[in-house]
Amino acid sequence: MSYVYLLDTTLRDGTQGEGVSLTVADKLKIAEKLDDLGVAYIEGGFPGANPKDEEFFRAARSLRLKHAKLTAFGSTRRPGVRVEDDAGVRAVLDASTPAVAIVGKAWDFHVTDALRIDLDENLAMIRDTVQYLKRFGREVIFDAEHFFDGFKRNRAYALATVRAAWEAGVDWVALCDTNGGSMPHEIHDIVAQVIQEVPVQVGIHTHNDCELAVANSLAAVQAGARMVHGTINGIGERCGNANLASVIPNLELKLGYSCLPSREHLRLLTPVARFVGEVCNLVAHSYQPFVGHSAFAHKGGIHVSAIQRNPETYEHIPPELVGNERRVLLSELSGVSNVLAQAQAFGIPTEGREAELRRLLDRIKQMEHMGYQFEGAEASQELLFRRALNDFTPPFRVLAVRVDTDVQRQGESTSQAIIKLEVDGDIVHTVSEGNGPVNALDAVLRKALAPHRPEIRRMHLTDYKVRVLDEKDATAARVRVLIESTDGEHVWRTVGVSENVIAASWEALVDSFQYYLALVVPSQALVEA
Amino acid sequence: MSYVYLLDTTLRDGTQGEGVSLTVADKLKIAEKLDDLGVAYIEGGFPGANPKDEEFFRAARSLRLKHAKLTAFGSTRRPGVRVEDDAGVRAVLDASTPAVAIVGKAWDFHVTDALRIDLDENLAMIRDTVQYLKRFGREVIFDAEHFFDGFKRNRAYALATVRAAWEAGVDWVALCDTNGGSMPHEIHDIVAQVIQEVPVQVGIHTHNDCELAVANSLAAVQAGARMVHGTINGIGERCGNANLASVIPNLELKLGYSCLPSREHLRLLTPVARFVGEVCNLVAHSYQPFVGHSAFAHKGGIHVSAIQRNPETYEHIPPELVGNERRVLLSELSGVSNVLAQAQAFGIPTEGREAELRRLLDRIKQMEHMGYQFEGAEASQELLFRRALNDFTPPFRVLAVRVDTDVQRQGESTSQAIIKLEVDGDIVHTVSEGNGPVNALDAVLRKALAPHRPEIRRMHLTDYKVRVLDEKDATAARVRVLIESTDGEHVWRTVGVSENVIAASWEALVDSFQYYLALVVPSQALVEA
Repeated sequence: MSYVYLLDTTLRDGTQGEGVSLTVADKLKIAEKLDDLGVAYIEGGFPGANPKDEEFFRAARSLRLKHAKLTAFGSTRRPGVRVEDDAGVRAVLDASTPAVAIVGKAWDFHVTDALRIDLDENLAMIRDTVQYLKRFGREVIFDAEHFFDGFKRNRAYALATVRAAWEAGVDWVALCDTNGGSMPHEIHDIVAQVIQEVPVQVGIHTHNDCELAVANSLAAVQAGARMVHGTINGIGERCGNANLASVIPNLELKLGYSCLPSREHLRLLTPVARFVGEVCNLVAHSYQPFVGHSAFAHKGGIHVSAIQRNPETYEHIPPELVGNERRVLLSELSGVSNVLAQAQAFGIPTEGREAELRRLLDRIKQMEHMGYQFEGAEASQELLFRRALNDFTPPFRVLAVRVDTDVQRQGESTSQAIIKLEVDGDIVHTVSEGNGPVNALDAVLRKALAPHRPEIRRMHLTDYKVRVLDEKDATAARVRVLIESTDGEHVWRTVGVSENVIAASWEALVDSFQYYLALVVPSQALVEA
Repeated sequence: MSYVYLLDTTLRDGTQGEGVSLTVADKLKIAEKLDDLGVAYIEGGFPGANPKDEEFFRAARSLRLKHAKLTAFGSTRRPGVRVEDDAGVRAVLDASTPAVAIVGKAWDFHVTDALRIDLDENLAMIRDTVQYLKRFGREVIFDAEHFFDGFKRNRAYALATVRAAWEAGVDWVALCDTNGGSMPHEIHDIVAQVIQEVPVQVGIHTHNDCELAVANSLAAVQAGARMVHGTINGIGERCGNANLASVIPNLELKLGYSCLPSREHLRLLTPVARFVGEVCNLVAHSYQPFVGHSAFAHKGGIHVSAIQRNPETYEHIPPELVGNERRVLLSELSGVSNVLAQAQAFGIPTEGREAELRRLLDRIKQMEHMGYQFEGAEASQELLFRRALNDFTPPFRVLAVRVDTDVQRQGESTSQAIIKLEVDGDIVHTVSEGNGPVNALDAVLRKALAPHRPEIRRMHLTDYKVRVLDEKDATAARVRVLIESTDGEHVWRTVGVSENVIAASWEALVDSFQYYLALVVPSQALVEA
């Protein structure tokens, strides 16, 4: 089985994406996860251009990587400068990585128009830089920028840049579709021609501007490329880079190539992709192939009943292979069969409860009409099921709540929340403050509950989202709040809907606390006992 | 030039997507936009399965479509039932559309395992249904479900289903990669074989489970298919359908096919894609190829200076061709050249202000470090530039604000806001209530400003987003609020960051009002004068 080397550039090209900004600590955490996943190369940054990346490479020396070679990125030497005097090349060497990637021009138009230099000087820049870096024992990858656009206009010159790198002793030439405008059949043809012309190991670096980055990467591999550059979740400049979270399973499961150390590593794909999404503050697109929250979610009534008989009917691979899971969605398209399947999944007895299940389905449709969305709020969904099917005892009852906020445009704004609730037959009436209203509500709820339920200290909120539902109504519109919580081991999500953002937050907050106390804590006690 | 017929199924297969739920009114609005764009067929719904879709087809009779044929979707008749007695087939006819699409099984395993019927009965179901619908003068598309999976296992039977439809007089056979698991080279090979075996017009219907739906659609067209099914923004079950917003420009601009009435229609692609995203309540993925907010956004310093010399250096097509636009992003990777380019774009004088621009860049980096994001909040960015470069007179000044909220879990929650502000030298001190705190703030600001600035009534908020920035700090974390506002003609977006969600909302709200009063209204007055 052919092996394809993955070069992950999430930490370098990925950070060119809109909205992506990573600290050194973030980058170190991501590098460790990428190594766990088993990629061959981790391109960590551009030390000549970015001081934060130099700090990253210094800090990265203490990482104990199991699989990946850390790779520093730079350019060929500047025109008219001796390579040993070039500050950028020096910075790449100073990163002290086993591998380096050096970008250079392969499209004559860029050489003459952007760099404004002689075509031969560009070839000398490539040759000098590769030779120099090889002298220091580095594994050298030459990134031939705009290779495909260049090849289409001036085939001979594009090939000359590859040949220059090869003659200088380069280890890999990565052919770049920098602007992302090439079609799969072009990529396939051109890669095949390069391999025929120059006996160098070829890699592929694509961008997603035509929604073809994954297809283009696969086409290049099928034409003989044995290195693929990409990023987790496809983040990167403009429309992003080739998404390794899709390239990897396509290579491993569909095309018969190997690119990770083992099939067990492939199961880390979903958790790693979601981890990177969280750290990059770009939550993974729910629809994302293989690793998305919806990737194996079934909604249509026909699909759901077929899936229950045989998953192969509507799934192209078993979701476990990539560490994802199957989900059955409830929605207005659902039939009672979905509600029944869901109730059974929660372990609620359903025998002879057809009428109750129908009423529950009606209630769900009515709530969805109001703006509730239980897809992505499974904890609230489970509470709704248990409450409707008399399978739930609320751990506390709220009698009254009020929040006041003094707003300061600059500086400290404070909120104060007052609550009255009943827990274990006691009435608790208390007040707490917070730097925001939801924080104050969270604080007062903890303060009221802690004497009776000390385990509440182990849980906290990890995400809070607000969505305006009917934009025509502007600030008077209903809003939906989604809250994610964790106790460090479990993660659960709850929903609230109201015209008042604080009331919607409160609903989701109370669901989160009730879910934890009534359903998470008892199951843990069971495991510990 | 070959013509490729587009069948848009946003309103049918698209609504199978997680989180997608459309009212009849929404569907009518989308149908009109799709027709403006110029697709050949609009698949409006599944009348036999969904009463809302029957209502849609009734209401759609009053649409005056210029280009598109409305298409109703259904199944082949049920087993053992005469086609004229089949309620589903009846519902399809009752939709009174010029074209109909009928899905049937093409994979023997589904016939014997899911339907549990004889293989010949399935062929009879296809034949009977197509013949019957043709008798009523309908243009008939046969959707061969699971065609590619079926072909790989039992080529003869898969082809027999296509032949049955063709012999019955079908107009098109759409080959479906229902589970989305096929590779482009397989799609190409199999489509070519079908075309060689059966002289029918072939279409392609792909899903995005391997991130290859667009590539697979193009591969099928290159093999001879002349109809492409897909949805706007690729919404649909699991990972979605082929994204027409990418298929269309690839066919038109890259592969030399025609699929819209004219090049002018292609310019509607971005506005139509964003409209559909809004109505579906799934805001278009910012990275989305061709139509995304980031699709032509340039961030890297080298890219920005090259783009300013010649856009072809880092853009595969001119963004105007698809109705999108170029953007230059500011971020910690920016140099002074980006800040300078941005100031010039705002029309602020920059001559000899290098030092001020450098201070502004430092301030931007510091604010981004605190969690501000000006990508997607261009109005706040412009205010920041104008304030920093002394090019702004605030239209009002806030002296104090307070909001109180009584939270009710069920029923009416109310908020009350008190404000003191200065406008035109007057001090205004007033109070207003709202059904939520931001609504109360919005209301009190309008109430305070309206006597001095009556034009405020023309603007309102259209979107409100909250993002928790540092999840480790749970509800004490900083939050970022993004607000979108409009006066019906302009749209602008503002940002606020604070540990207090109300304070962050207030900052974005004040920016929105100041931007409107200081920058939008005067430019309108100028146009009207």
